[in-house]
Amino acid sequence: MAAPSVSVRALHLLQVPEHAELAWILGCLTSMPRLQHFPQWKVKNASQMNEGTVGLFTYPVLQAADILLYKSTHVPVGEDQVLHLELTQDTARRFNKKYGELFPVPTAILTESKKIKSLRDPTSKMSKSDPQKFATVNITDSPEEIMLKFRKAVTDFTSEVTYDPAHRPGVSNLVAIHSAITGLSTEEVVRQSTGLDTAHYKAVVAEAVTEKLAPIRSEFVRLKEDRSYLEKVLWTGAEKAKELAAPVYSEIKRLVGLH
Amino acid sequence: MAAPSVSVRALHLLQVPEHAELAWILGCLTSMPRLQHFPQWKVKNASQMNEGTVGLFTYPVLQAADILLYKSTHVPVGEDQVLHLELTQDTARRFNKKYGELFPVPTAILTESKKIKSLRDPTSKMSKSDPQKFATVNITDSPEEIMLKFRKAVTDFTSEVTYDPAHRPGVSNLVAIHSAITGLSTEEVVRQSTGLDTAHYKAVVAEAVTEKLAPIRSEFVRLKEDRSYLEKVLWTGAEKAKELAAPVYSEIKRLVGLH
Repeated sequence: MAAPSVSVRALHLLQVPEHAELAWILGCLTSMPRLQHFPQWKVKNASQMNEGTVGLFTYPVLQAADILLYKSTHVPVGEDQVLHLELTQDTARRFNKKYGELFPVPTAILTESKKIKSLRDPTSKMSKSDPQKFATVNITDSPEEIMLKFRKAVTDFTSEVTYDPAHRPGVSNLVAIHSAITGLSTEEVVRQSTGLDTAHYKAVVAEAVTEKLAPIRSEFVRLKEDRSYLEKVLWTGAEKAKELAAPVYSEIKRLVGLH
Repeated sequence: MAAPSVSVRALHLLQVPEHAELAWILGCLTSMPRLQHFPQWKVKNASQMNEGTVGLFTYPVLQAADILLYKSTHVPVGEDQVLHLELTQDTARRFNKKYGELFPVPTAILTESKKIKSLRDPTSKMSKSDPQKFATVNITDSPEEIMLKFRKAVTDFTSEVTYDPAHRPGVSNLVAIHSAITGLSTEEVVRQSTGLDTAHYKAVVAEAVTEKLAPIRSEFVRLKEDRSYLEKVLWTGAEKAKELAAPVYSEIKRLVGLH
């Protein structure tokens, strides 16, 4: 068994063949300019010297297929995915108008989440794919790694802890993380940190993060050892998805004239 | 059964689900600039007010998938498809390098064919999708339609029949068609037409075309009536293609890490 490659985008979506098939059909309803405006594309394409791949560019269409293939009515999304869902909604309407009413136009459920920024550059978001070594805290990081990353977090020359994202993005990001981890408001965590300088505050946040992640991390480690269980979960999920997808894709084929 | 829609590009290719799946994988190996240079895209996108679809833009990748999925070694192409085959070759090499040797790099077999130009504009090629009414001769045209189209063919103010594509594109196109239809060289058909003016020559070419197309047209009409036979041919073809595609796609999945 070859090691999974990350270079095929959305490999997991290909477990259900109908995703790629429907993506092709939906791509025939999507204009090129519609995709050129996605910030994710613009940023990643620029970082790849304008040599971004077709897979990266058309990824929102595959996502739309993944949503519509199940006749989804509600989709939980973060703020950075609102544009993607709008594309999905437009595509559903366009399909329905052209081939006949089939897809519900799905509604966004905006998941409330603090925008967590990079520890190395508090003006850009924290991202799994950030190449900077200390920018991102991973669920699997050890307590030592977490402490080191927070110690190296970019702040400013004011030692007091305040929440002022516009003028103090670095320390405000720490406050936002602290607030998200503890479930307390930003005001409350700032109040609790009165008297601490940022160096000490970094240690406090790092500890809160470590404590929160510890059970998740140990569960992660345990599951990772149990390869056969994980494969069973993936397999069962793919089978279930295929069962749901098959009748919808049959309808799609009939409507577009593929029989 | 809904009438087949032409708005999904390459509907027939979707009869084999693996085409769309492999196209997704190959799209992850294809840079966007690689596709932006295809003349077909540039022309059609411009004619659609720069609102060309993702399906149109990425069509060469689907074609590459359709070739590679069968481990094709030789592909008969016309000159306007050479660029498409080059993309396929590059994609095969890129896949082999990244995931392991799998695809033969297919060789082009350039089919010798006269470049037939539009009857209304002898500087652009004759095309099924040309919106101009008299530009294109269809296999299913009646003798009257063929005669009318040739009568209206754009020529110039010289009445003599000569073959000189650079200076007399209109009449040279008629000569090229005449040559292709009769299997004679352009020199030979020009020699045979000595003494004819272009008006009479148009009638000669129209008749030769009508005569050549007559048996094809009647077979076309006969087959079109025999819907169940046609469906059987399509079905048998798709089944045969699926059988050939399945083991290759299994290898592909293993190599990219999809199991």
